[in-house]
Amino acid sequence: MEKFNSSISYDRRMWEADIQGSKAYSKGLQQAGLLTKAELDKILQGLDKVAEEWAIGTFAQNPNDEDIHTANERRLKELIGETAGKLHTGRSRNDQVVTDLRLWMRKSCSSLSSHLRTLLMTMMERAEAEKDVLFPGYTHLQRAQPIRWSHWILSHAVALSRDLQRLLEVKKRIDVLPLGSGAIAGNPLGVDRELLQRELNFSAITLNSMDATSERDFVAEFLFWGSLCMTHLSKMAEDLIIYGTKEFSFVQLSDAYSTGSSLMPQKKNPDSLELIRSKAGRVFGRCAGLLMTLKGLPSTYNKDLQEDKEAVFEVFDTMNSVLQVATGIISTMKINKVCMEEALSPDMLATDLAYYLVRKGMPFRQAHEASGKAVFMAETKKLALNQLSLSELQTISPLFSGDVSHVWNYSNSVEQYKALGGTAKSSVEWQIQQLRDLLRTLPQ
Amino acid sequence: MEKFNSSISYDRRMWEADIQGSKAYSKGLQQAGLLTKAELDKILQGLDKVAEEWAIGTFAQNPNDEDIHTANERRLKELIGETAGKLHTGRSRNDQVVTDLRLWMRKSCSSLSSHLRTLLMTMMERAEAEKDVLFPGYTHLQRAQPIRWSHWILSHAVALSRDLQRLLEVKKRIDVLPLGSGAIAGNPLGVDRELLQRELNFSAITLNSMDATSERDFVAEFLFWGSLCMTHLSKMAEDLIIYGTKEFSFVQLSDAYSTGSSLMPQKKNPDSLELIRSKAGRVFGRCAGLLMTLKGLPSTYNKDLQEDKEAVFEVFDTMNSVLQVATGIISTMKINKVCMEEALSPDMLATDLAYYLVRKGMPFRQAHEASGKAVFMAETKKLALNQLSLSELQTISPLFSGDVSHVWNYSNSVEQYKALGGTAKSSVEWQIQQLRDLLRTLPQ
Amino acid sequence: MEKFNSSISYDRRMWEADIQGSKAYSKGLQQAGLLTKAELDKILQGLDKVAEEWAIGTFAQNPNDEDIHTANERRLKELIGETAGKLHTGRSRNDQVVTDLRLWMRKSCSSLSSHLRTLLMTMMERAEAEKDVLFPGYTHLQRAQPIRWSHWILSHAVALSRDLQRLLEVKKRIDVLPLGSGAIAGNPLGVDRELLQRELNFSAITLNSMDATSERDFVAEFLFWGSLCMTHLSKMAEDLIIYGTKEFSFVQLSDAYSTGSSLMPQKKNPDSLELIRSKAGRVFGRCAGLLMTLKGLPSTYNKDLQEDKEAVFEVFDTMNSVLQVATGIISTMKINKVCMEEALSPDMLATDLAYYLVRKGMPFRQAHEASGKAVFMAETKKLALNQLSLSELQTISPLFSGDVSHVWNYSNSVEQYKALGGTAKSSVEWQIQQLRDLLRTLPQ
Amino acid sequence: MEKFNSSISYDRRMWEADIQGSKAYSKGLQQAGLLTKAELDKILQGLDKVAEEWAIGTFAQNPNDEDIHTANERRLKELIGETAGKLHTGRSRNDQVVTDLRLWMRKSCSSLSSHLRTLLMTMMERAEAEKDVLFPGYTHLQRAQPIRWSHWILSHAVALSRDLQRLLEVKKRIDVLPLGSGAIAGNPLGVDRELLQRELNFSAITLNSMDATSERDFVAEFLFWGSLCMTHLSKMAEDLIIYGTKEFSFVQLSDAYSTGSSLMPQKKNPDSLELIRSKAGRVFGRCAGLLMTLKGLPSTYNKDLQEDKEAVFEVFDTMNSVLQVATGIISTMKINKVCMEEALSPDMLATDLAYYLVRKGMPFRQAHEASGKAVFMAETKKLALNQLSLSELQTISPLFSGDVSHVWNYSNSVEQYKALGGTAKSSVEWQIQQLRDLLRTLPQ
Repeated sequence: MEKFNSSISYDRRMWEADIQGSKAYSKGLQQAGLLTKAELDKILQGLDKVAEEWAIGTFAQNPNDEDIHTANERRLKELIGETAGKLHTGRSRNDQVVTDLRLWMRKSCSSLSSHLRTLLMTMMERAEAEKDVLFPGYTHLQRAQPIRWSHWILSHAVALSRDLQRLLEVKKRIDVLPLGSGAIAGNPLGVDRELLQRELNFSAITLNSMDATSERDFVAEFLFWGSLCMTHLSKMAEDLIIYGTKEFSFVQLSDAYSTGSSLMPQKKNPDSLELIRSKAGRVFGRCAGLLMTLKGLPSTYNKDLQEDKEAVFEVFDTMNSVLQVATGIISTMKINKVCMEEALSPDMLATDLAYYLVRKGMPFRQAHEASGKAVFMAETKKLALNQLSLSELQTISPLFSGDVSHVWNYSNSVEQYKALGGTAKSSVEWQIQQLRDLLRTLPQ
Repeated sequence: MEKFNSSISYDRRMWEADIQGSKAYSKGLQQAGLLTKAELDKILQGLDKVAEEWAIGTFAQNPNDEDIHTANERRLKELIGETAGKLHTGRSRNDQVVTDLRLWMRKSCSSLSSHLRTLLMTMMERAEAEKDVLFPGYTHLQRAQPIRWSHWILSHAVALSRDLQRLLEVKKRIDVLPLGSGAIAGNPLGVDRELLQRELNFSAITLNSMDATSERDFVAEFLFWGSLCMTHLSKMAEDLIIYGTKEFSFVQLSDAYSTGSSLMPQKKNPDSLELIRSKAGRVFGRCAGLLMTLKGLPSTYNKDLQEDKEAVFEVFDTMNSVLQVATGIISTMKINKVCMEEALSPDMLATDLAYYLVRKGMPFRQAHEASGKAVFMAETKKLALNQLSLSELQTISPLFSGDVSHVWNYSNSVEQYKALGGTAKSSVEWQIQQLRDLLRTLPQ
Repeated sequence: MEKFNSSISYDRRMWEADIQGSKAYSKGLQQAGLLTKAELDKILQGLDKVAEEWAIGTFAQNPNDEDIHTANERRLKELIGETAGKLHTGRSRNDQVVTDLRLWMRKSCSSLSSHLRTLLMTMMERAEAEKDVLFPGYTHLQRAQPIRWSHWILSHAVALSRDLQRLLEVKKRIDVLPLGSGAIAGNPLGVDRELLQRELNFSAITLNSMDATSERDFVAEFLFWGSLCMTHLSKMAEDLIIYGTKEFSFVQLSDAYSTGSSLMPQKKNPDSLELIRSKAGRVFGRCAGLLMTLKGLPSTYNKDLQEDKEAVFEVFDTMNSVLQVATGIISTMKINKVCMEEALSPDMLATDLAYYLVRKGMPFRQAHEASGKAVFMAETKKLALNQLSLSELQTISPLFSGDVSHVWNYSNSVEQYKALGGTAKSSVEWQIQQLRDLLRTLPQ
Repeated sequence: MEKFNSSISYDRRMWEADIQGSKAYSKGLQQAGLLTKAELDKILQGLDKVAEEWAIGTFAQNPNDEDIHTANERRLKELIGETAGKLHTGRSRNDQVVTDLRLWMRKSCSSLSSHLRTLLMTMMERAEAEKDVLFPGYTHLQRAQPIRWSHWILSHAVALSRDLQRLLEVKKRIDVLPLGSGAIAGNPLGVDRELLQRELNFSAITLNSMDATSERDFVAEFLFWGSLCMTHLSKMAEDLIIYGTKEFSFVQLSDAYSTGSSLMPQKKNPDSLELIRSKAGRVFGRCAGLLMTLKGLPSTYNKDLQEDKEAVFEVFDTMNSVLQVATGIISTMKINKVCMEEALSPDMLATDLAYYLVRKGMPFRQAHEASGKAVFMAETKKLALNQLSLSELQTISPLFSGDVSHVWNYSNSVEQYKALGGTAKSSVEWQIQQLRDLLRTLPQ
């Protein structure tokens, strides 16, 4: 049972946050007259000593340390004696642990947003450099229309830029001080929560002590943030796994991100991408698990909430790795322009053929049908769409004339899509600029 | 297979959004020179006629109408002839459907935020009115400390106020125009997306056409918003179910929100609360389902995305009901002040007894231990904690003196918690004020 | 609130089961002396009349019918008068509804297992017919080793055969009678539950009345059965979507299972497969939702359990469609043997090259390395692996001799895998036989 | 990336299974003529030595050991030289890892079923011992009917007995040999899979090599088994948490399973029960995560499958603890018979009052209504239901006579429920007997 109850094996990761919180709280106690200046100094020095032991790895855990809070206070008492017993006055583990967790997560979000920015910069640089490369755009995994390779890169970057914005919103809700809420009723001893807020540099303070000690919205939001971000990365990974097959041959991972087979000597497997894809499940599983734990729980602190930390740590570690590995993959993979260009086929211009007729005045629905007939005629004759003769086309519509030959040009095709967000070069450049502006305006 | 593929049975709910989107798009086509003014007028009038048929219930579905888009265009063609075939020029169902969905959800979010505001106002009024009622605060469902009943109400209101803020953030990301993205590559015909944005009153336009037609972040966020909001409502429901047992007898639901038993004549069951609690599962299930559908999907539009709408509709309908039912429950339930007061017991003041010693200079850890000894002594002697004599208390600590009798007062106890967010009357009033300010500053 | 509470809109699907259950229960009442024979006959005839009205569509719902149970009893009373009021003696909606649901699901499982058998037979016939077709086997979506096309088909059939076995296990646990459990305490009036069991043809009776009326294990198991089955179908769909790309061109869906594009005239999209893949999310979402609803619920019947039926109905409907659509896809799709054969490449025989050396006495690890060197040498020289000359190979190992040429034969390669479960023809035939035996021995 | 890819930090838990599998496989190689008897002996002795190093804790990991398979083979080679390189002939990590996992899980299931049996025995003993204790049965958490305390215990035991049966079914599907499937195509070198099956004592062999190396149904089933079992344990925990409140006071946890508060000296919190309730979320989260990882994955081995092991290990560890802690809680908690009896109130006999009238010939629906009127009359007059005078009752129905006084007896009430599964003593004893018979017939 003790092992079942104990959390020290994982919550010791928050040692620094726990000490930060205790230092701030002891200042609050002194201001409230519950500690003398000398007692405060003793406590602060003691806590610094405990922190130092953690930092250099000499902190000796005790079998009775059930969590990081009792461990730190136990050690403080060993170092400074009975005065340590004043530190917890008016505080509860309920407000202490959630303060620690918020401090830890605030820092972690900064780390993740920094990795996300690096990934975005890497993608944007690549999009900038390779914007003249064309290749097939797919819908339903069927060749659809020619697009710029950079347009593909940016489609993923734009999704990830939303993740960055969402992470900052989550961080904003993490950055709220619960300390001073006690176990349930609040703080009764004149501790000034606004002082605590300043000491710990929180943006706001919690409004209700019962809610403050038991709400884990910020945890659920963080886990969901990871889950949604992972659906984006799993989508990019899926594309690259497919583009990296022999059959597509559009991209090739660098050796560092591929692995061989214990049986088949010729294999180079995209393990890095598969792991990214798979981690979407793991991260979401933690989100699902926490929400199920929260569902139907009565008000205020219940021990069930102890489940929050391992979920947060695992999701942080996973996102931390995944974002860096993704950056490595994107920055080192090679593209095969020849295969990309060879994969462009005239049938992908069937929409353009319809637009040709639209420009000559035919309503789109009829033009779509006429182009469809041309596709069918070409298939039947085992010809490429652009190999149909003008007279063959004219059996479908008299609007076809010699200028139809201008349709069969992939570069012209992509340049049509000049509307904002499209695949024309100007529009791709606009996208990059929009992302740059966004990164500049978002807080670090 | 046709039945498997068809979506008209549910996506017809978006008929109004579909017509709005088409009206805006036809204006874009006219400005781009693809429609004459006369054609535009014809289309607009035709679309208004289609809308009218939906509104009054005379729209006749056709077995070939696979979705709302084809149904509306089919009917338009019946009404205005071939000109209808120009409406879809440069548009794809990919950008059309996601425009419709965003329009529908934008409106739905307004409706939900309005219901959420009503619930919050109801709770705040009740908190205002009943702030002098004391009852036991529980942690781990064990009696912990006396608190104000209003403090309990506000603990749930504060959580719901975060849901309101989050809903507005989700709405902000819903309120982005995807129209003009075509199937994948963008719009090639000079349609001005900023004109479309103005016509449809969107706050922003999507940045990348591949992403715009296939990202469903805003759907996932909405489903998760519902899931998290439901954990709050399930928590409140759980509390009230427990408080409504014969054993607690703190609250009594009005008859409108209770139901009887087909077998047991004496039963009054809190079905309304149980349904709220249960819906947390349903809503989260939809969120889980969509994320699983999204995971590992390749880029751009895939038919898998058709799963988004039923999830959105079901979660909207559920939240719509749940928020209104919750308001009804809160506004009509009765509280039983006598039972609440009788449930306050002297052992709930054990923390106050420790604080008494702290105020006399004893470090909190020792005071906690001393108070614990008093609790044990009272239990052993089968006395209430406040029935221990002074001399008995003094066997535990010489710091006890006659003024210890002031501890045994529940009103005094709650009034200690004056720190922001605590259960003192001033602090409860501050909470109400904070929520009022928030509701005033948030957009409707 | 009434709308929120009502379940008639969906639970009327169980009208037949509800009447079956009531008929059996009235026989139990008669045997226990609570109904005369004449009353019994009146009730039975009345119930048959109600059933007939449902069957022919003339049953008129009443706004006060909150669920199928009250609707049927209300109608019975209209038909036969006060005697109807004896039917519910000693019964509760708690045991009634779960009896209905078990009866409904028992029948549904039979229907699903029949569809699953049809799909399996279709796959086995196809595997039988096309066992001489070779194509690349992939791991990590990279070409691995040549295999038989039938081996691929069977890999999915084997998975689905486990689903059939599991469905029968779930059905076994559905097939247990809860009737006679009352609301919580059991049946007090001498009703013989073994008589009810015989009347309703259940395999067993529930052991504990509190558990019987509130456990929904069989629902959770059914929803999970669907979820796991859908991961198999989503896997097969994913393979076929990839094999159906222009780049792979191994399979082509029939037109009935493809759809076109509203914009791009050349498109034929595998919507049927994408819908199957996507439904894995929906089905699992229902499973997740129910488990979350169940988690932490107190004992016995709580209204939360009303969530079970819509989940069951939706999952049944989905599986029912998906299994039939999958059968249609498999039975009508075409394979492209030419593309399949052309996709076999000599590097896929690198393992065979290593085995060649193993057979000459080299430890496998060294042989793997030597073969890897040959692959590298071929790549460097831009040759196919089988184009390396003998002397080139001998620079890698002196064990290479003229007979190495026998390695370069795909048919020989697959025929090596004669161990049970492998891709040799004999082993593929063994697999088909094993599945046939299984289908014969499993109950219908 | 190496760290991201590596699995040794957790898969080393399978060291024993890995060595078992390798020993069996080397015997297969020898029989197939790929190893001499001397080579076999060398390998077997080497593997035993490696096993010994793991067992006594001296196995030295190498930074290049990416997984348990490479670690063991690396060490074997250090111990016995190049012959070690023959061990992997015709084997792949794909079939090796899944063999290891099945061996590990087969053993783990035995351990879990043993803990589950112990829990069941503990519950049955307690049910046996306390079958004369009556207390209120609740539905919707409202007092419903008097029941035996043992009936409550057995309601949970019956649910857990289904979990035991399901675990044995999962184990049956775990107990299938995949070894000899190679990477994808099977085993090409004459290794006899039936020999491997005998060596490793598997009940069956996998049917298809592609499926065998990549299906993780048995993992998903195990994770779901845990999820469903946890909903039962979370339900029992929820009941006990409520029954352990001051307001109910039916049960009291022993100190070993309660914890105090860092702030409130009087608190004894049911942390053990809350942790059990919460773990339902964690276990289900792993199940959800794995299913999401599996969804939409293409055929055969993909690195995504590496996610399986940590899920299995965490769920095993959790279930292992939870089952033992639950046994400890049940065997040591005290019940408070006085509070239980005092909680029985006459209104809980309202159904019996209706049955009284039924026995006098009134149709149940009318009797239910009449009893409801009596309840209302008693409430209005602020009397207990049994305090209504006969003449008062007769204003409701002339069928009431002096013998109505026999209704007001809780012991008589429970003894009515003699139908199988009810709360009469004979029926409770029947339940215990049924469970005993089940435990005797199920395999250990």
